[in-house]
Amino acid sequence: MLTCSTFDTMFDTRLFFKCDNFQKSGSFKIRGATSAILRLSEKEASRGVVTHSSGNFAGALALAAGLQRIKAFVVMPENSRNVKKEAVAGYGAEITFCKPTLEARESTAREIIDKTGATFLHPYNNYDVVAGQGTAALELLEDVGDLDIVIAPIGGGGLMSGTAITVSSMFPEAQLIGAEPAGADDAYRSLKEGKIIPSVNPRTIADGLLTSLGDLTYPIIRELVSEIITVSEDQIIKAMRMIWERMKIVVEPSAAVTLAVILAKPETFRGIKAGLILSGGNADLDNLPW
Amino acid sequence: MLTCSTFDTMFDTRLFFKCDNFQKSGSFKIRGATSAILRLSEKEASRGVVTHSSGNFAGALALAAGLQRIKAFVVMPENSRNVKKEAVAGYGAEITFCKPTLEARESTAREIIDKTGATFLHPYNNYDVVAGQGTAALELLEDVGDLDIVIAPIGGGGLMSGTAITVSSMFPEAQLIGAEPAGADDAYRSLKEGKIIPSVNPRTIADGLLTSLGDLTYPIIRELVSEIITVSEDQIIKAMRMIWERMKIVVEPSAAVTLAVILAKPETFRGIKAGLILSGGNADLDNLPW
Repeated sequence: MLTCSTFDTMFDTRLFFKCDNFQKSGSFKIRGATSAILRLSEKEASRGVVTHSSGNFAGALALAAGLQRIKAFVVMPENSRNVKKEAVAGYGAEITFCKPTLEARESTAREIIDKTGATFLHPYNNYDVVAGQGTAALELLEDVGDLDIVIAPIGGGGLMSGTAITVSSMFPEAQLIGAEPAGADDAYRSLKEGKIIPSVNPRTIADGLLTSLGDLTYPIIRELVSEIITVSEDQIIKAMRMIWERMKIVVEPSAAVTLAVILAKPETFRGIKAGLILSGGNADLDNLPW
Repeated sequence: MLTCSTFDTMFDTRLFFKCDNFQKSGSFKIRGATSAILRLSEKEASRGVVTHSSGNFAGALALAAGLQRIKAFVVMPENSRNVKKEAVAGYGAEITFCKPTLEARESTAREIIDKTGATFLHPYNNYDVVAGQGTAALELLEDVGDLDIVIAPIGGGGLMSGTAITVSSMFPEAQLIGAEPAGADDAYRSLKEGKIIPSVNPRTIADGLLTSLGDLTYPIIRELVSEIITVSEDQIIKAMRMIWERMKIVVEPSAAVTLAVILAKPETFRGIKAGLILSGGNADLDNLPW
């Protein structure tokens, strides 16, 4: 957990950053992957786990499975970034490449399940995964005590759901805010319309936040999250650079959306204590957005 | 203090990083500046302090003086980077710009001293400054206990001297290694020839390590430092990128020379415990070297 007196002075607030960019595999995803793997029966574990992911969950599941000495099968779209492919392979998972469509990902995963009996683990729409993601907020609250507001990024809703359950159980008075790119505002629209609005052609630099809410994460978020605040691409990039420059840590755009919320609505945070979940640090150092 | 299991596996060693990129003002320089300011008499303090610097010491002295509510005069070459000028001004120091030569810097500082009675504080050739810089290693040793080797960057020798005094007092068996760019290897040549060889036209990306040893720092280094290992520009850039990518922290090139030493001579570090002083994080995000 880090603080930054420059930001506290700048925004007249007290911010507490949970730095999951420092987490194993470079993001919070290892928490949910580990949680789900540890709840497998011995028989399930012996057959391994399978997921489809082009991003942080692929590497996290590969690592978490390797640490428990169970087999991981990862279906990756063939256009995934090389650095992601190498990370997944480096952690010892068996990769199967497929066309970059949801249908191809799902059918390829099904083939592997039919052949191996491996257990499918969804990156976020899974209660065991959600439970694991909630440990980031748990550690934050253990470090700093009560907070007035906790902000987490919203993509598929796994991190937001886990965060919301943890925070509302420990400090029911605390407000929960979801941080979402305006260019991928399906969660904002879902809460407004009272049903899951799928994410269609999202456009944002925050590439961890492109997915739609799941039928397990949506109800948790609807019940517990006070507000979803959407932020512009400029605000995300500005917040990301501020974190690198002032806090001297490397975070990815999807993590910077939390500070972008404070840039977007500084008045909401004046004079209070807020916790921010910095979800990951797997930024592309060859393509910085400034 | 941070560790990185990826590096430990990669180099078959155990590395402990003292992260002074997280230090106030973004580098270890605030330690020496604060130490020197706290040792001023009340009368001296009332007249303020003066230094000439284009880099991290300028900002550090400005901040340290501001925190003690004393006046800081900083002479900066007119071609200093804008971000440095803004930082010094932002910390409340009075800046006087001068031509970018050592003569102009010194004569401008002398004029200010004559006019104000301010005390001149040299960025490194000053025992009070050296004492302050030694607290980085002190905190590292308090955190991790004994170490087989401690590596610090060598520029003017302030950090290396302070580190050497601390480490050799607490763990006389520990080896001290200075990390120096091959393109600014005046300390390496000074130890070899047994006298101070000035740094003439140094060429390195590690812009905190361009200066020559001082007559106070050289004898400390000659007595206590086991070896100076020089590293190439490629090794510095590779090490810097590895730290950003794997440790998820922002360090400047002058800090990365310590890990570059391990890239240059991995066999020296096999099976041992080494401490590395990451001296600062004021990297230029608009001009990354990869």
